[in-house]
Amino acid sequence: MCRQPLPPGGTRERIVTTRVWVAVDAGGSSTRCAVVTADGSCIGYARAGGANPISRGMPTAIAVIRQCIAAALEDADRPASTVHGVVVAMAGLGLATPLQQSVAESLRSDGIIADVHVESDAVAAFEAGTHRTSGYVLISGTGAAALRIEEGGVAATADGLGWLLGDVGSGFWIGQRVATAALEELDGRGPTTALTQKVLDHFGIDEDRRRQRDESRRLVSVTDLLVRVYGGPAISLAELARFAFDDVDDEASRGILAEAAAGLATTLSAVMAPSLPGPVVVTGGVLAGQPRLRRGVVDAMALRGHEVELERVPDGLAGAVTIGLRRAGVVIDASRHAHIRESLRR
Amino acid sequence: MCRQPLPPGGTRERIVTTRVWVAVDAGGSSTRCAVVTADGSCIGYARAGGANPISRGMPTAIAVIRQCIAAALEDADRPASTVHGVVVAMAGLGLATPLQQSVAESLRSDGIIADVHVESDAVAAFEAGTHRTSGYVLISGTGAAALRIEEGGVAATADGLGWLLGDVGSGFWIGQRVATAALEELDGRGPTTALTQKVLDHFGIDEDRRRQRDESRRLVSVTDLLVRVYGGPAISLAELARFAFDDVDDEASRGILAEAAAGLATTLSAVMAPSLPGPVVVTGGVLAGQPRLRRGVVDAMALRGHEVELERVPDGLAGAVTIGLRRAGVVIDASRHAHIRESLRR
Repeated sequence: MCRQPLPPGGTRERIVTTRVWVAVDAGGSSTRCAVVTADGSCIGYARAGGANPISRGMPTAIAVIRQCIAAALEDADRPASTVHGVVVAMAGLGLATPLQQSVAESLRSDGIIADVHVESDAVAAFEAGTHRTSGYVLISGTGAAALRIEEGGVAATADGLGWLLGDVGSGFWIGQRVATAALEELDGRGPTTALTQKVLDHFGIDEDRRRQRDESRRLVSVTDLLVRVYGGPAISLAELARFAFDDVDDEASRGILAEAAAGLATTLSAVMAPSLPGPVVVTGGVLAGQPRLRRGVVDAMALRGHEVELERVPDGLAGAVTIGLRRAGVVIDASRHAHIRESLRR
Repeated sequence: MCRQPLPPGGTRERIVTTRVWVAVDAGGSSTRCAVVTADGSCIGYARAGGANPISRGMPTAIAVIRQCIAAALEDADRPASTVHGVVVAMAGLGLATPLQQSVAESLRSDGIIADVHVESDAVAAFEAGTHRTSGYVLISGTGAAALRIEEGGVAATADGLGWLLGDVGSGFWIGQRVATAALEELDGRGPTTALTQKVLDHFGIDEDRRRQRDESRRLVSVTDLLVRVYGGPAISLAELARFAFDDVDDEASRGILAEAAAGLATTLSAVMAPSLPGPVVVTGGVLAGQPRLRRGVVDAMALRGHEVELERVPDGLAGAVTIGLRRAGVVIDASRHAHIRESLRR
């Protein structure tokens, strides 16, 4: 169940309206669903697995979303027929129109006859962080991108080009540099770093094997690392990113994070318009979870002459609620927005 | 047919010895085979397709090698029974022993009852560039690595860690940066560069689409590029490397090549021993084909206090000949080595 703080100016009472709104934030690793009333109070909540239509396929994504909505409605003790509107925030903007039709059709078969709207996860993240309808969102999770939002729509995008061509400052980008720093030390091409032991431990590579050499006269631990990394999907290098935040005194880690922060600042600067100073909402596992990287971005922006404050959100769920209620004509001002966020906090 | 320059101190005459040696350089994109006499004169030559056992599989690699040997023996007008020794240079050092057995068995069924030796392509490249048995080889083709060779064997290896974790200064590494520079310009994150038009042309992306924007408010040409690059194998970014050499005045290109040269110098430095100043043999499509990158490496080594001269070889064929004759007891001094190289030139 959700927290149910008092709505602004209101008293806690049996909610009289039968109408509810459903908000879904469908992410790559988990999906969250909230059932809210017209004042933005959360009365039901559920979590499910990942529902990224690109990595998991459309049928799986839709099945996960339906399951998560059904669980949240059960938590709220509300029938499907009371749902007035549904907003699903997810990656894969180009898929919005066919996705919207597929989601709407499948929800109809679950008894939800309602306005269904599929929104970009980035726009939902932006609206999760502010009641304003224009500003910026900077994302660093597995990938990284910045968007300028104007009147609730995307006005510009920078980066988000994927692990092979961009995503500068993302979890993959940092993790790849963590692996590279470890290999450069083992290979005699780079300085000693605390990252090396962490990377070897992560892959379960025995300390004893560090000093032996194979027929290429490489350290066996280097060959072991190559086998482990190339044996898995490239994107799993993102799992190594957290090691860069472990040791503030490690020079290699500091260099990687300084470059990540500068890269994210460049990405954000690329979408900034002089007439719109903010707000800047930040999200994604790396930026939302690592205050040191956020400080680095603020400092790098200051060097570029932009004084920014970063508003951190864990995901786009509060934004999906905001978008759904606005579509129904509810005015979301600063205090209503704060109530939505507070009500979703867990 | 091969060139047949006069052997050192010799006169051209009908070769009396019936014994010949076969040398094969099996590369990723092509395989070369030479048939030589005991004095290192090439009397038969053939080319075939790629024979990398890792990318193409062992059965294909062996089939290509057999076919190439048969064609070279036909060119030399010599029967299989006259072959006294075979050296096959190829990538995949770890596979040497099983590969050697497989190659030897399959050649026996072709009537070649001879000493068969499989050698690392890097060692063969080294021996193609010098008659000495100790020194260094620096490779930049699709991948990049440096090796220290001592008494004809590998004493140390640096980099060669593949496109995801290293290969600094390789064709992939340069090509990825060429693509990134183009995307940074299109994305508003980087400066104007001559590389952008070359990359768009390479992928056949229409100039008209450069200025339109799609629903993410990205340039359509950016989305087109992403679709093209992610639709193919990552390694094909190496095809873009050549554009970095086109325009000496392009700042982005100069930056990429300076970083590539510095990276290759770091890799070479990692295997250098103070007691062994050289020789340094360079090979691979990028280093062998681009004098500007070689000059960059020499300059970057000088900054590190190492004055090096780079001896360029197109491939390891002359090295495979050298190794084969040495295995038969032939002394290969500087003049014999020069004769081998001259005889193979085409």
